[in-house]
Amino acid sequence: MKVYFVSDGTAITAEVFGSAMLSFFDVKIDTISVPFLTTEDKARGFCKQINNEIALGHQTLVFYTISDPVISDIIQTSDSHCYNLFGDLLSPIENALGVKARPTAQKAHGIKEGVYDGRIDAINYALANDDGCSVKNLDEAHVILLGVSRSGKTPTSLYLAMQYGIKAANYPITEDDFDPLKLPSALKAQKKKLYGLTIDANRLHEIRTGRMASSKYASLRQCRYELSEVETLYRQERIPFLNSTRLSVEEISTKVMADMNLDRHRV
Amino acid sequence: MKVYFVSDGTAITAEVFGSAMLSFFDVKIDTISVPFLTTEDKARGFCKQINNEIALGHQTLVFYTISDPVISDIIQTSDSHCYNLFGDLLSPIENALGVKARPTAQKAHGIKEGVYDGRIDAINYALANDDGCSVKNLDEAHVILLGVSRSGKTPTSLYLAMQYGIKAANYPITEDDFDPLKLPSALKAQKKKLYGLTIDANRLHEIRTGRMASSKYASLRQCRYELSEVETLYRQERIPFLNSTRLSVEEISTKVMADMNLDRHRV
Repeated sequence: MKVYFVSDGTAITAEVFGSAMLSFFDVKIDTISVPFLTTEDKARGFCKQINNEIALGHQTLVFYTISDPVISDIIQTSDSHCYNLFGDLLSPIENALGVKARPTAQKAHGIKEGVYDGRIDAINYALANDDGCSVKNLDEAHVILLGVSRSGKTPTSLYLAMQYGIKAANYPITEDDFDPLKLPSALKAQKKKLYGLTIDANRLHEIRTGRMASSKYASLRQCRYELSEVETLYRQERIPFLNSTRLSVEEISTKVMADMNLDRHRV
Repeated sequence: MKVYFVSDGTAITAEVFGSAMLSFFDVKIDTISVPFLTTEDKARGFCKQINNEIALGHQTLVFYTISDPVISDIIQTSDSHCYNLFGDLLSPIENALGVKARPTAQKAHGIKEGVYDGRIDAINYALANDDGCSVKNLDEAHVILLGVSRSGKTPTSLYLAMQYGIKAANYPITEDDFDPLKLPSALKAQKKKLYGLTIDANRLHEIRTGRMASSKYASLRQCRYELSEVETLYRQERIPFLNSTRLSVEEISTKVMADMNLDRHRV
């Protein structure tokens, strides 16, 4: 089965929605994204391609988000099952809002005036405040992620910045903080922004082994030791924390935003 | 108007789809995401909250992606307009695929077995190969973004890694490469992977001024000079390139993947 995500924009909405939909089905699927399909010619070319696939005996599905009704109608003339993702909902939502939809090209993933610079600032902030490399600007942070090396801090900071414009610093907890067990001094004034990550020792051992096999750093014993200390530190300092082992970056980010009451708006 | 994005998972699908839908309407909207709504109790609590909003005279809409039909039915008992985003499409797609949907909790943004490590690797790769800071691993790159300082290389590399698991290095073109105008030697063996970014001089001047006001680096004259040279270099070396001025990170990434024939699958 070949599934096409087609759009007059980036096709990200069709991709996200279509993939979520398909995750309900236990079927082997090839996905193909077709962005920037903005002309009737391109639409006819796409139909020809799809019809060829079908003539060759392939099964196809098309999920599309296209505003221009003429282009949309051309897509529908293909021999494939085609689903207009906005189609069925647009008119009930018009009724609910009491406003007609503007038939503009899909710009859901275009530049959003007024938030764009904030997004790039947040990405630069995450990079400049990654892994404790700067502690000067922690006042600006919306949240500061803590954790031992390789517990998921950096991808989470970058995701929060990229998708939500949230300024997330991250700070590594290391052996230096264990004897006596205490919060790094740079973080003491930022207590309310702290959020801890932890991870299962076996998984951490596996990840660190991928980076530095047979090192003390990667040993299961060292991983267990660091995680036990850091979790004790979180409890001692009453820092909320999360085990990231079986969670995606999206799930970790979602929990962080919820637990820390961060303003959640996609940018 | 308050719009709620509700899910038994991260609510990212509802957020992406719902926001795209709402971008057709010229209405002031507050959005609130409600992730991890996984129990009947939580669903009843949510209905109470919505009904209170409505009793206070607020207008509300609810977009939801919830698999459990019991929880889904509870949401529908609220006084708000509620749209089950998968609802209308699930049974036509069952028919098209000839397979029944599995009523599992929505894990579209959970960990995907088999691709997850690749994603984290790609993020680490983008960080390690940001801004030309390493040229040792360029053989591994799927694409190498070129451009003058602040033309959009870093956010694009990170987005490609985060959302598509694509290993994108990026390399700055500087004055050192202008006299004589030539490709940095580290890039010569990677010619087929190169993709250039450019940007309007006024916009670059504005961005650089935000970082380093009144510097030679930020001056309009310097921006014009660097951009004119880099565009000449792209043409001379036949490197495909794109003007990023009015494009979001998503749009730039989409063009890069399309122009460079990169394998596009969300991770």
